[in-house]
Amino acid sequence: MADTSPAPRTLAVVAAEFIGTFWLVLGGCGTAVFAAVQVAQADTLDIPVGVGYLGVAIAFGLTVVTGAYAVAHISGAHFNPAVSVGAAVAGRLPWAQVPVYLISQVIGGLVAGAVIFVVASGKDGFSATGNMAANGYGAHSPDGYSLVSALIIEIILSAIFIWVILGVTDRRAPAGFAPLGIGLTLTLIHLISIPITNTSVNPARSTAVAFFNGDGAPGQLWMFWVAPLVGAAIAGVLYGPLFGEKSRTPVPA
Amino acid sequence: MADTSPAPRTLAVVAAEFIGTFWLVLGGCGTAVFAAVQVAQADTLDIPVGVGYLGVAIAFGLTVVTGAYAVAHISGAHFNPAVSVGAAVAGRLPWAQVPVYLISQVIGGLVAGAVIFVVASGKDGFSATGNMAANGYGAHSPDGYSLVSALIIEIILSAIFIWVILGVTDRRAPAGFAPLGIGLTLTLIHLISIPITNTSVNPARSTAVAFFNGDGAPGQLWMFWVAPLVGAAIAGVLYGPLFGEKSRTPVPA
Amino acid sequence: MADTSPAPRTLAVVAAEFIGTFWLVLGGCGTAVFAAVQVAQADTLDIPVGVGYLGVAIAFGLTVVTGAYAVAHISGAHFNPAVSVGAAVAGRLPWAQVPVYLISQVIGGLVAGAVIFVVASGKDGFSATGNMAANGYGAHSPDGYSLVSALIIEIILSAIFIWVILGVTDRRAPAGFAPLGIGLTLTLIHLISIPITNTSVNPARSTAVAFFNGDGAPGQLWMFWVAPLVGAAIAGVLYGPLFGEKSRTPVPA
Amino acid sequence: MADTSPAPRTLAVVAAEFIGTFWLVLGGCGTAVFAAVQVAQADTLDIPVGVGYLGVAIAFGLTVVTGAYAVAHISGAHFNPAVSVGAAVAGRLPWAQVPVYLISQVIGGLVAGAVIFVVASGKDGFSATGNMAANGYGAHSPDGYSLVSALIIEIILSAIFIWVILGVTDRRAPAGFAPLGIGLTLTLIHLISIPITNTSVNPARSTAVAFFNGDGAPGQLWMFWVAPLVGAAIAGVLYGPLFGEKSRTPVPA
Repeated sequence: MADTSPAPRTLAVVAAEFIGTFWLVLGGCGTAVFAAVQVAQADTLDIPVGVGYLGVAIAFGLTVVTGAYAVAHISGAHFNPAVSVGAAVAGRLPWAQVPVYLISQVIGGLVAGAVIFVVASGKDGFSATGNMAANGYGAHSPDGYSLVSALIIEIILSAIFIWVILGVTDRRAPAGFAPLGIGLTLTLIHLISIPITNTSVNPARSTAVAFFNGDGAPGQLWMFWVAPLVGAAIAGVLYGPLFGEKSRTPVPA
Repeated sequence: MADTSPAPRTLAVVAAEFIGTFWLVLGGCGTAVFAAVQVAQADTLDIPVGVGYLGVAIAFGLTVVTGAYAVAHISGAHFNPAVSVGAAVAGRLPWAQVPVYLISQVIGGLVAGAVIFVVASGKDGFSATGNMAANGYGAHSPDGYSLVSALIIEIILSAIFIWVILGVTDRRAPAGFAPLGIGLTLTLIHLISIPITNTSVNPARSTAVAFFNGDGAPGQLWMFWVAPLVGAAIAGVLYGPLFGEKSRTPVPA
Repeated sequence: MADTSPAPRTLAVVAAEFIGTFWLVLGGCGTAVFAAVQVAQADTLDIPVGVGYLGVAIAFGLTVVTGAYAVAHISGAHFNPAVSVGAAVAGRLPWAQVPVYLISQVIGGLVAGAVIFVVASGKDGFSATGNMAANGYGAHSPDGYSLVSALIIEIILSAIFIWVILGVTDRRAPAGFAPLGIGLTLTLIHLISIPITNTSVNPARSTAVAFFNGDGAPGQLWMFWVAPLVGAAIAGVLYGPLFGEKSRTPVPA
Repeated sequence: MADTSPAPRTLAVVAAEFIGTFWLVLGGCGTAVFAAVQVAQADTLDIPVGVGYLGVAIAFGLTVVTGAYAVAHISGAHFNPAVSVGAAVAGRLPWAQVPVYLISQVIGGLVAGAVIFVVASGKDGFSATGNMAANGYGAHSPDGYSLVSALIIEIILSAIFIWVILGVTDRRAPAGFAPLGIGLTLTLIHLISIPITNTSVNPARSTAVAFFNGDGAPGQLWMFWVAPLVGAAIAGVLYGPLFGEKSRTPVPA
């Protein structure tokens, strides 16, 4: 569907990936920080009204649904280094373009992390330490899962994520539904795994908040680069031999 | 897709924006007022069954998804002065049409506010003061966020909202998905920011309930005109230089 | 899109409206009866895990999204006497066909009510009285709203429902999205108004469970025929003069 | 839409059904095991933040929405023996292909069950017995429903599921929306019936976790093969006589 448009400039790709990853982190981590746990009073009862893990999962997914409908025609709407690497492994993105994608994503995510930090600091009593929606395992897993469990689930979910992305953008799949399918996959990934690692499958998302969060997150950040990239590579390698088709919408070179 | 239809009359535009904004306020603020906090008894337990912030966020988004599928072909389905101004700044709506959009939106919203007030008054013990889903900051922020935090988040979320709108209606984006993408963006915006400002990004929505709500809301209303319009203008100015395309469906002049 | 298919037989229309309304009542009222209020134990805590009003609202909407994608090409997927009457008022359904629609809908709904009753009776201690998701006002309103409030909200929401239906099936609206837009409108209608009337906007849904529920519901059933039909008629009368177009997919005569 | 692609190899079908059913079980049962019941502390309050039955219902549905957009063009995206049998009964899948579908599905589901078991075992204090999201009736029904209630609801919901599938893939239905309609039907099915049987309508899903779960689940597994297959057969037999059309996208032979 990009046939009649002029070749996108690098500026447009950078802007799309920067804003898209900014939106992913602001929307997903912002919801977790600002809105997951909230209480209202009704008569003498304390009633939970926060959005909980379900709301956070929906938020992450909707960042991709909405951001991808806005700029998929510009950059492919990766918003995630694992997606860009998986696309490159699968032959859908030239390796030479990977660095500009990754740099735009990481910086966009970090700016969003800073915005969350600044806005949250405008609430009396807020302390960023341990409260910035960082990813973690072991002592830093929300529900106490081990490093091995965290590695397994992050690798598998990242591989499935890339498998869906390669499938829904396959030229045999119905046009127009890719942003919906990809975003809803991210919602589902969060539904499964927030209690395990707070869910990454995206090194830019993990990096965006780790340093603001402190509390052990920077020391565990390596895992949230390794596991998503390994998962993405597995899916990128296997898709072609198993399913045999190329993308309808190759990312412009 | 509007090529073969007769030029819409101003009446149709007025009706579409009036009903659409009425629906946005009735659906979003109505859900907040009527249904956010509800309790059911099971055995001796008090069980929360209200829709919470998640339900309110979904409600606001669905007002736009549904209203826009119903009348996007009539008026563009703005339902929001910030959207109309952002569209005008981006060159997608003639400035001469902006007043009729804004007036229809504000009046439609106010009528919805009145309906919520009347229906809620049919419940014993209801007091409108402070209970009409007004927007606020500082002492009137749901979770106690400062004016600066409120300004930052309202400007940024409004800018992102307009960015998504301009992107999904770009002629390079897949046709038909714009109402879904725009409405889900509004859901996501609410997921992030209900605890901060009760979420505006829409001066008509804020105006619609401020005076029924009282309790400081009228005095803070200026902020929910300024921030959404500033955010919309930023996005309207930047979209063209960054992404370079025009709308598939220009609003009829 | 029905141009190349043979003229549907009355049997297909009857089957589509019967099964669709059966599905609407089983899915919506069934979720309310079986799943709205549920508690799980975690350590020594009682944790609510039921789907609440949000889940019920989503359930009602999904009955229409899914049922309409399945049979909109057969019968138009009304599943609701107010929709059939509104379509007839707007000139989209021949009045001569209205009886077969209404009878199929009412019987389909009643069979679903009976299934809910039988399945629920397989749980120890279940009593149908007052527990069959009936609609009501005053003493039978879930949150104590008056008859006037109930009338106002049911008329307005029914009118908006028909307005959206006529809009999304207007030939200027994007093809294929009508079931999604209509179903999500029903979700939104429930988000707003479950606490007020338990939400009808559909006389067949109200009739389906009123007699199994008892407890005052049969005596209030008149209201849930009058208000939805009045709202539907208002929308049916106004749509043409305001927006001026006809349906893309007229119901086959 | 498969006209221009080469005939899929059996490998692709096996991979699609294996991965898709793996994803269905990992996503649906995984969410139930890992995330349904979670508590966060806010001040001195214990606040529920788990996804509850609503999140589990959404998770199951999204496995099918996302998996089907990824591989519907490969295998039809059944992920469920009842779907394959229903398709065969309706004349949409050659009976000779049914075994390869069923075997791929059952093995894919079992591998997902093993992954859930291994990951969950990485949390201190986890015991698989009774905690692997198995299906059940009577003493093993989540809310204490009898075998008869369980049989009725599983047969009816399976029949409706196949009815929707045959309808949304009917060539008269709008193209591209089938994965959305089918997946959302599975969400709705779970909204209704998690308290009754923990919801099967899919023998592969039931088999995948029954043996890891123990606690009576293996002895009740027969029911979750019989009821879904009976329901699917009913729908498969009735669809043609009632609605009279064939699939737009026959599964390749």
